[in-house]
Order: sequence, then C-alpha cells, then structure tokens
Amino acid sequence: MKVIAMIDSFKGSATSEELNQAALKGFPVQWEKESIPIADGGEGTMAALFAAYGGQYKSVTSVGPLGEERVVSYLLTTINQKRIAIIECAAIIGIQLLDPSDQTTRQASSYGLGLLIADAINEKVAQIYVTLGGSATTDGGLGLLEALGAELMYQPAADARNPLLTINYFSITAVQKLLSGIELLVLADVTNPYTGAEGFATTFGPQKGALPQTVQVLEQQAKKVAYFVQQEYQIDLNGIAGTGAAGGIGGATVLLGGQICPGFMTIAKLLKLETRISDATLIITGEGRFDRQTAAGKVPLGVAKIAQPHAIPVVALCGQREPDLGEIGQYFAGIFSIQPGPLLLDEAMKKSVTLANMAETAQAIAMFHEKITRANHGDGGGNGSF
Amino acid sequence: MKVIAMIDSFKGSATSEELNQAALKGFPVQWEKESIPIADGGEGTMAALFAAYGGQYKSVTSVGPLGEERVVSYLLTTINQKRIAIIECAAIIGIQLLDPSDQTTRQASSYGLGLLIADAINEKVAQIYVTLGGSATTDGGLGLLEALGAELMYQPAADARNPLLTINYFSITAVQKLLSGIELLVLADVTNPYTGAEGFATTFGPQKGALPQTVQVLEQQAKKVAYFVQQEYQIDLNGIAGTGAAGGIGGATVLLGGQICPGFMTIAKLLKLETRISDATLIITGEGRFDRQTAAGKVPLGVAKIAQPHAIPVVALCGQREPDLGEIGQYFAGIFSIQPGPLLLDEAMKKSVTLANMAETAQAIAMFHEKITRANHGDGGGNGSF
Repeated sequence: MKVIAMIDSFKGSATSEELNQAALKGFPVQWEKESIPIADGGEGTMAALFAAYGGQYKSVTSVGPLGEERVVSYLLTTINQKRIAIIECAAIIGIQLLDPSDQTTRQASSYGLGLLIADAINEKVAQIYVTLGGSATTDGGLGLLEALGAELMYQPAADARNPLLTINYFSITAVQKLLSGIELLVLADVTNPYTGAEGFATTFGPQKGALPQTVQVLEQQAKKVAYFVQQEYQIDLNGIAGTGAAGGIGGATVLLGGQICPGFMTIAKLLKLETRISDATLIITGEGRFDRQTAAGKVPLGVAKIAQPHAIPVVALCGQREPDLGEIGQYFAGIFSIQPGPLLLDEAMKKSVTLANMAETAQAIAMFHEKITRANHGDGGGNGSF
Repeated sequence: MKVIAMIDSFKGSATSEELNQAALKGFPVQWEKESIPIADGGEGTMAALFAAYGGQYKSVTSVGPLGEERVVSYLLTTINQKRIAIIECAAIIGIQLLDPSDQTTRQASSYGLGLLIADAINEKVAQIYVTLGGSATTDGGLGLLEALGAELMYQPAADARNPLLTINYFSITAVQKLLSGIELLVLADVTNPYTGAEGFATTFGPQKGALPQTVQVLEQQAKKVAYFVQQEYQIDLNGIAGTGAAGGIGGATVLLGGQICPGFMTIAKLLKLETRISDATLIITGEGRFDRQTAAGKVPLGVAKIAQPHAIPVVALCGQREPDLGEIGQYFAGIFSIQPGPLLLDEAMKKSVTLANMAETAQAIAMFHEKITRANHGDGGGNGSF
C-alpha cells in the first residue's frame, strides 16, 4: 500500500512539504510513503519544482512594487534536459509587500518583475515560468515591458508612478525579438480579459485598493493601450483569456510572445504527476481553506482530476471546510477539516498546531482505510485490484 | 450496506437522537440507515430506552437537592415482558440544579431520589434502574434511605441539611424487605469505595464544592456509617466497588439489596446492541469530547468493543478530539472532529451548527467508505464479506 501526500501550502501557516510530512507521519510504517510538494501556480511553485528537480536559487537585486530596492531569488533548474527559470511574481511585486490603498495602486509598477525576467534571459534558459498570483500592481504590465527595454512615453509623477496612469505611447519593437528561442510561460488561473467589466482595472483594482476614480482612469488607459496594440501590432488583448491576470501582466507577456497557462495543470505536467501517482493506493491532498473557489483549478481538485482515471481515492484535508461544496465533493473520497475542536483562528494557524492536527487527522484516515479494507477483504491488503 | 448511528448526546448541544439523524442524513440513499439513541448511563438513558421500547413518562412531585419542591419524570416501560422503571438521578438531585459551593455540599440530600424510588416501588415494577451520574449530593445516600422509611437519628440545622454531617444512628431494618421481588440496579462508572482516599467525600466532595474542613467531617461521618453497617448488618461498604458513586448513593443502594452495574454495558444489554448491530456495514458513534476518559466505559469505546467481534468498522465523530488518544484509538476506524474550521466554542455548541457539521462530516465518511470500497472491489459493493 502506498500513500502519496500532495497538500498545497496552508498560507501563513505551513508549507506543502511540511504538511506532506505531517500527514505521512500519521500513516503506519507498513505504508510506502511519498511526499510530492505541490503548488497551485502561486506561492510554493519554486519549492515544488526544487523538491522535484533540485537546481539553484539565484539572488538578484531588483525593485519592489513601489520602486524600493529588493533582493529576491528565482529558481534555475533543469527539466527534461531543458534549462528553466521559475520566477514567482509575488516575491518581487507581491501585494503582501505593501499596505494596499488607492495610493499604492497609483504607484505600483511591475518593473521589478521585468528585471528578473531580463536576468533569466541572460541565463540562457530555454523556458521561463512566471507565476502571476498575488501581485500588487495594476499597471497593465507596462512596467515589466519597460524593464525589458520597451519604449514608454508617460509622465510619472510623485503620486503616479504607475506608468499606465499617464501612458501616451509605447513601442515593443525593441523587445519583440528579445525572447527568440526562449519560451515564456506565465501561470494564471484567472481568465479575465485586459479591459471591460471583467478587465483587470474593474475587477482587481478595487481589491488592490483603488478608489472608483482611479479604477476609471486605469480602465480608460488600458482601453487606449489595447486599442494601440490592436492597431500597431494586430494583437487583440481582449481576445485572449488571462491577459487581465496580475493587473494586466498577462497581457504584457502576450505582447512578448509568451503564453498564459493554467497554474496547477502546468505544474502537474512539469512534475509528471500523472505518472508519479499511478501506483498510489491513496492520495492525501488539501489546502488551507476548502471552498467552491477550489473549482477554479486549485491543487485539491486538480489532484483529484488527475487521480480519477486511475481510480485512486483522494482525501482532502483542510484547515477550514465550507459547507455545501456541491459538485466538487464528488471528486473526493472525503473532505475533512483537521481542526480537533473549537479553537481560535490564530491558534489554529500556528505552524506547530497545524502540523500536529494534520498528523492526527491523517492517522484517523489511515486507520479508516485499514479497517474498511479489512472489512471488505478480510485480509488488510490494499491495492490488490490495481 | 447498512449504517447504524449510535452517538452519545453532545452535552449542552444536541441529543443522541438528533445527532444520529444528522449523521445518517450525510449518508446517501442507497444505504440502509438505523438510528439507535444511546447513553453512557447518565443523561439520555431514559430517552435511549424510550426510543427502543416506548413506555410512559410518569411525573412525580418530589424534592430537589436543597429540599425545594420539584416535579420530575421517570420512565416506566416493559422490556422482555418485565415492567421496568428508569430513573435519572441528575434529573431530581443533579448538580446542574444548583450553584455548587461548600454550603450546597452541607445542605444537599438525596432524599428526593428516594421519593422517586418509592414511587417506582408502588408501580409494582420488576426492576428499577437508577443512573447515578451528575448528583449534587455528598450525603452517603442517607437521604435516599430516609425517604424510603429508614430510621435516621441526626440533627439537621439551617446550614447542615445533609444528614451525613450529623448522623448518630440509623436503622435500615424497615427498608430491608422493601425491595423484595424488585431488582434495584444502579448505573455507575466509578468504582470508588465508600470511604478512604478514594471514598466519595475525599474524591468527589471538593468537585461538588466542599471545603477541606467539610470534606474532613463528611469522611469521618462516612467512616462511622461504614463501621456501623459492618457491625450491625455485616456489610462491608468498602469492599464493594462503586459504593462511593454519587456521593455514597452507591453504598445506600447496596444496603437496600441493590446492585451497582457499569453504565454503558448495562444499557447496551437492555438495548440488545450486540444483536442489533450484527448486520451493520459501518457504525457511527461519538460524543461531545473525545478523550482518554472515554476509556472509563463511555459510549464510543463501548460501542467499538461490541462491534469488534463482528469486525464492523466503527467511526467516532466528536465535537472535540484530544491528541494522543493512545490505545483507545486502535478500537476505531478513525476518530474525527466535526468542526469544519477554527470557530468559537459557543458557536460550535449551537445545536444547529453541531447538527450541520455532523451531517457534513458523516457525508465525508460515507464518501470515503464508498471510494475505498470501490477501489478495493471495483464494484462499489460494501459488506459482501459478512
């Protein structure tokens, strides 16, 4: 019998690897155990690929969302004989790096992310993966383009560093060949277009702190950019799903010739999950909060869908379970919360508490599996039917 | 496939029957479902037997622990052609009826319970079952004996209504034949003797509010009673396990010719659990708080032990699960908390919240069972091996 743990990080509490190890600790020694650190295409993506393929973290001096100097790392590794860079957008221009307000949306630029991509290009990689989740920016990706050498004409002001606010003209001619021979793949689970009611300004602007008048200016300016791009380069930014991701960085990467890919499934492919899970008797997955949003392609549902053709039961263990998960529930052999009883969120989120509760719950799952299997077979054997 | 729910009441939140129904709601329609309301020999005992055998609740005017008039009900029913009375001690002299203090331990008497037993004797029953859990009294059972007609010589004072405090002499000759032809069975899970370090005064006195000086007097007086009983009636109160139950009511019932029985196992026998569960595929049990104390004979462990020879997996669902349950855990096919995430005790204990969480957790268990069984058999069938 083999159990594989593939639990997404519980944000703010424990990493995927830590949670996997805790869950596996709950299984008795007669189980073969495997931990596959995993991510949904946001936080933890580098860690998941490093766990699978090793590599080196390269430290680079770049700038954060408000232009402040920041030293961050990205991962250089080799997969299928290809040299690959993996960059987490949130590490350099993440919303957790500032205190979101209307002012920060007027200031934040994706320039720093562009510097990291430039560094990766110099590393002569074959592919660059960029995770788009958790950005603080709403600049249409213009800062990123600027960092890579695109010509931007705009009037930055003390209270308007975001280039989108004042953009008049830009040319990507200088950067169009920049990626020749390099695949740029950005991971995004949202399918929002560049502009309109579902565009980045209207949809994500307010979440990042923008007031209605700022949202209105950003949307007008984004429309101007989209129109210009259509006229000049014959690219329809609103015709491609995901160009509105990360405040429009999705759109900017399309202009560079990059591709927008679904986060989890891309990682699953990189990790060769389909092959690696095929001999599992049971899979433990999970995430901090288990809700209908999971249907958007997060880790647990993705894992369950990969396991389904193999008829491997997938149990989801979470920090918090919403009621009435509807159709999602059908993919799982049970969705359980790890909380042992009433307790406060702060206490529940302590890493030591989370890991202890994870181990205890996994132990109950292991016991249940054993007893049901025994009752079914009368032998305690597990995966005889595979 | 058949699932039986036998969940102990979550004290202060929901009854056994309510929890059973909620859990069964979580199982899909293809399951045959049975609810067996259950109790540990304390609260819920009457309800469990009423659910199984019907009968009538008889209202009786009696007195509470402090002598105040109280109308309470006890159950009259018929089991195996025998007319039976079931009395819950806590209903008439329960500690929840007062605000425990040294003063209440000096005042509280088991007299009111004696009146209920007297009423049941008049009902010409063949057996009287009395649950001993949750009493407010520390009177050595003297009040109970007095109510039934025993002669007591003591000096009740305004601040010392508890007859044990001032007892000088008593005779049970008048009550020794009272129960002829009637079996008196008291349900108690403690094995404490009448006096000594493990006696009722020393062990339970402080829990009921007694200060050290009161405990000391009660213990001295209890020793006097035990000595007198030994001399006069050749009964060694300290040689019988459980005579210290319910502040010594265990001892008083022995003097009446009654027997002290383990709570859950006695109820299990009355409910014929061993036969009734034999065709179950899965049993759901549980209690509000799941801890090592469960080893003392409470519902979940009792259910698990009855199911063990039948090799029926037993899952325990609880409001709160302690870590490191040790050996106890081995009896179960998993011990799960029903809490969906971090939340406050007050919120978690609301009946509607408890029942919703119970149903959700049971649903996950049902799903897990189905998927594991399918993976094992490739057919979704359940109990083919029984």
